[in-house]
Amino acid sequence: MSKTFRVTLVDGAQRGESRSVEVAAGITMLQAALDAGVDITATCGRRGRCRSCRVKVLSGDIPPPTVQDTIQLGHDAVHENFRLSCQTAVIADCAIMPASLRGEAGHKILGAGESDALDGAALDCGVEQHIIVATAPSDENHLTSDIEEILLQLPPGTDPEVALDVLRKVPEALRSRNGQLTVTTFNKRIIAIDAGSEGTRMYGMAFDIGTTSIVGSLLDLATGEPLATVGGINPQAVFGGDLMSRVAYAQFDAKKLASLRGRILTAINDFIEEACAKARIAPERIYKIVIVGNTCMHHMFLGIDTSYVGLAPYAPTARYPIVVPASALPLKKTPHARVCFLPIVAGFVGADTVAAIIATRLYASEKIRVLVDIGTNGEVVMGSKDKLMACSAPAGPTFEGGQIKHGMRGAIGAIERIRIGDDVECQVIGEVPAIGICGSGLIDAVAKMLDAKVLNAAGRLRHNDLAALPPLIRQRIVAHEGSRAFVLVPAAKAGKPEDIVLTQIDCRQLQLAKGAIYAGILMLQRLMNVADEDIDELLLAGGFGNYVNIESAVRIRLLPALPLDRIRYVGNAAHLGAQMALLSETERRRAETIARQIEHVALATRPEFQEIFVNACNLAADGPTVTMSGSA
Amino acid sequence: MSKTFRVTLVDGAQRGESRSVEVAAGITMLQAALDAGVDITATCGRRGRCRSCRVKVLSGDIPPPTVQDTIQLGHDAVHENFRLSCQTAVIADCAIMPASLRGEAGHKILGAGESDALDGAALDCGVEQHIIVATAPSDENHLTSDIEEILLQLPPGTDPEVALDVLRKVPEALRSRNGQLTVTTFNKRIIAIDAGSEGTRMYGMAFDIGTTSIVGSLLDLATGEPLATVGGINPQAVFGGDLMSRVAYAQFDAKKLASLRGRILTAINDFIEEACAKARIAPERIYKIVIVGNTCMHHMFLGIDTSYVGLAPYAPTARYPIVVPASALPLKKTPHARVCFLPIVAGFVGADTVAAIIATRLYASEKIRVLVDIGTNGEVVMGSKDKLMACSAPAGPTFEGGQIKHGMRGAIGAIERIRIGDDVECQVIGEVPAIGICGSGLIDAVAKMLDAKVLNAAGRLRHNDLAALPPLIRQRIVAHEGSRAFVLVPAAKAGKPEDIVLTQIDCRQLQLAKGAIYAGILMLQRLMNVADEDIDELLLAGGFGNYVNIESAVRIRLLPALPLDRIRYVGNAAHLGAQMALLSETERRRAETIARQIEHVALATRPEFQEIFVNACNLAADGPTVTMSGSA
Repeated sequence: MSKTFRVTLVDGAQRGESRSVEVAAGITMLQAALDAGVDITATCGRRGRCRSCRVKVLSGDIPPPTVQDTIQLGHDAVHENFRLSCQTAVIADCAIMPASLRGEAGHKILGAGESDALDGAALDCGVEQHIIVATAPSDENHLTSDIEEILLQLPPGTDPEVALDVLRKVPEALRSRNGQLTVTTFNKRIIAIDAGSEGTRMYGMAFDIGTTSIVGSLLDLATGEPLATVGGINPQAVFGGDLMSRVAYAQFDAKKLASLRGRILTAINDFIEEACAKARIAPERIYKIVIVGNTCMHHMFLGIDTSYVGLAPYAPTARYPIVVPASALPLKKTPHARVCFLPIVAGFVGADTVAAIIATRLYASEKIRVLVDIGTNGEVVMGSKDKLMACSAPAGPTFEGGQIKHGMRGAIGAIERIRIGDDVECQVIGEVPAIGICGSGLIDAVAKMLDAKVLNAAGRLRHNDLAALPPLIRQRIVAHEGSRAFVLVPAAKAGKPEDIVLTQIDCRQLQLAKGAIYAGILMLQRLMNVADEDIDELLLAGGFGNYVNIESAVRIRLLPALPLDRIRYVGNAAHLGAQMALLSETERRRAETIARQIEHVALATRPEFQEIFVNACNLAADGPTVTMSGSA
Repeated sequence: MSKTFRVTLVDGAQRGESRSVEVAAGITMLQAALDAGVDITATCGRRGRCRSCRVKVLSGDIPPPTVQDTIQLGHDAVHENFRLSCQTAVIADCAIMPASLRGEAGHKILGAGESDALDGAALDCGVEQHIIVATAPSDENHLTSDIEEILLQLPPGTDPEVALDVLRKVPEALRSRNGQLTVTTFNKRIIAIDAGSEGTRMYGMAFDIGTTSIVGSLLDLATGEPLATVGGINPQAVFGGDLMSRVAYAQFDAKKLASLRGRILTAINDFIEEACAKARIAPERIYKIVIVGNTCMHHMFLGIDTSYVGLAPYAPTARYPIVVPASALPLKKTPHARVCFLPIVAGFVGADTVAAIIATRLYASEKIRVLVDIGTNGEVVMGSKDKLMACSAPAGPTFEGGQIKHGMRGAIGAIERIRIGDDVECQVIGEVPAIGICGSGLIDAVAKMLDAKVLNAAGRLRHNDLAALPPLIRQRIVAHEGSRAFVLVPAAKAGKPEDIVLTQIDCRQLQLAKGAIYAGILMLQRLMNVADEDIDELLLAGGFGNYVNIESAVRIRLLPALPLDRIRYVGNAAHLGAQMALLSETERRRAETIARQIEHVALATRPEFQEIFVNACNLAADGPTVTMSGSA
């Protein structure tokens, strides 16, 4: 007979009142509550995709948070023992308190403060819908106009000036259903007027436009519920995989810029259509769209010349939070939407970084925390509620497999992990014969080669005293193009004409790339006078961070030598921040404040950077200093 | 030897100091001043098209004002003896004071008060140009963006948010001339950023879009100087000569509305191009456009559904002063311009009437004045600085020759005046054989027929005691389609198969049309408790008013029985008001205040209207009351 545990449900609203139930081990807390007769809302159908079912675990063993917990609730709430009850198994006797037993109408994902978010505060997405009955002007009431009659029925403070596209439809709308209208406002400005009262659903989308990929989500603005997620490769990739090659492609050439821009526009239009089809909603019901992305993507999407963003000092044309009607871009599927771009900090610290700060609440942290997004242009943000500093670290394409002999993106056939014992064992994405090695594999390989003493702290492949190595390992160190290489997968095993190797030059490339990121961290530590032990937490954000073996990343000094439990992967924080700004104008305004207050450090202009960078390229803190030229 | 007069020039700035000169009679005052060594600016080249050369005649006989005097200076200034010195001949010894001997940089046409306008106050068109040198972000100054650097060089209070189309050109503009830029703002909002400092000219256009015709003028916003006037037939005319037939054509049919709209848009785009070509300026330098027109034209131009403006109670969709970027319409030739529509009072008291009030300064009048625009939809405004009331009078197409047997527009071949003595003498436009009779001819004919006792006060053609009439007149009263008619031009003389006649029914039509206008005046007189003798001045505005014989108009009771010197033609006051709003934001704001404060009277909804209308149809105040059916 299986083990059972007692689960006590405490009513948060009326403390003291509680119910309890005996349940089988492993059952979800949500199910336990239901068994106890306590009705917890599970808006997303127990898929871990909303936060309606969240509970606070008051006592008892708490299972570690799932990815869904972190994404939906944020790390602060998770630290405070909040969990999604649909995702959390009962593993001991426990007492839990549902966030709301009353069934709440609105809730936030990752609110301004968890205490706010959890007391069922309404969403403040800025979009409001008003169902009104307005009287068309009549013989008795002729000293008026259609729009004045409509304004009479709206809350005081509504902006009396109406966009032309809305005005054009007013006469018909006012008269087709006896004056019954649904008026949609965004920050008190009328953005849509529809006949009838059916239009009471309002949706929004949040997009993170990355250099490599685009991800978007469709949310119900009234409930905060996520309805669909869409995403794919940024179709600009045909004009260059990395940012700078695209900027170069379109530099001083308006036509080429327009073609790059057209590709994003088409993609976003298509994603909107796809998301709406998935969720079975009409795209015209999308009233707010939040866009984040790096500065180049931001400018390109807006049609702003990016020629100079690609040249030192990489100055943006505008940093303030631009809001435009969808028709100005145009996003044709969503005629009523206001498109809100989050603000920018600098040429390489874009709206995506600002969004990630919002999502991780770095700005509210009591202690020093660090946010690191590893990529071609890595970003590092460090600080607390007292001060935030940010820099961008030009890591280059190494982490995407660029400039590595057998490098490749993290796709099927890529080596992503290796183990070195008596021999080398490679873990390959898709469990197929290896084709090459991806960024996370590279980090793991170098870490393990260090451990196995195949590589020294200066990044040199071992060339003497090889006899000390296990025989099978020793055989893998081979001569290669005038230098050395380490064989990861012999040709025979890979089914290829040549071995898959990591060359001496590859090791150097990785050192340069990881050195750039780590130098960014070190520079901010120095400027803020923060020792490693002062860092309370390091958050890895972005698509790449998900795949990195954190232990290996610390081993090769890509990240500082923190206890591993202080380093966490926080998912696509930029996209999460965009969603928060979508659901909350408080968050969107906060983004503006943060972007204005954050201190940007331009690494290249700092005299001390070279020294820090050289140090950062070392694979061990106490290793010999090496001169980082292109080849060993 | 020709007569000479002494002209004394008094310096307005330093009273007491004067020069004098002896000049030949008939020479212009401008030339006299030049002869005296006093340099008067004549910006328009002595064409009477600006006000730079205006003088005040302090003593001596003053020639009557020319049309240019009235248009350029306004009636108030003319009454105060201001004249354009380039247009005014010396006809006696006189003393004159130039408005400015110093050569003024800016001046107003028809300012808020003449005293303001004449002391050389600067134009306040709202458009400002700033020549700045901004520094592109550099390595030393990288915590910024292009637009922030530009804003640093602009006056405090400049709106930091920039329209997307402007932003798109900033990176290139900032860097192509070492940061030298011309930044154009409209009401503190940046509307254009151009590289270099050549862009220091700024222009604007003012349009009056009438049902029948469109007139526009191009002005220099820095000096107020008019540079070109353009105009022509409203190309919508192919869809119906009168307003209501056009509204009916497009009613509940978005495609037809779009085609009507397209015709105005094309016309305005063409007029802009034509005006710029005439003045040899680049249309991109046009930064402000003011549009006035009746409510239908206003709505159609904006693309607002006019279906309901054509149905009682003829409610406008919006009355507030709409301002849109030219791209929203689009006016493609003027990408930077802000297009300002003056506000509307009611469905048939449109932005054109508001503009006419601005131009005639009715709102500032100490005594009661009346503004009358005679047309298919006539407008009457009555009041003083204390109160203004307005109504629209549905006169129908009679004044345009519609529904009159031989009626025609005021074109070549139209009878425009007649004299009746022993016989009838017709004055024909173009001095060609008569083809028909136009509205002004109709008014004159009926007035003269009354005087000649061919018609009685009830509007009946004489049918008894014909022997009392002169023989040639008597012969002209003929039987016609079961009733009677008065022969204006016998067939033989007209070179046509039939006589040109005025039928009994024509007389009735004219009574109905003039009765509508006069009823509007009478209604406002009754509501405001204004007797004829309380009316200080009656101003005839609009295209038709120019051609009306005022004496005849009073004779037939189209206008109240005022002394003739209290009735004046004030030209296209709507277009003049549009120009004033173009040159002065004070005037444009005033239009908003006036539109909000003016009291609109919907004649048709007033129970007393029928009685007033029947009275107004009479041709004599003491004549017998007639029943106004279609035929006698």
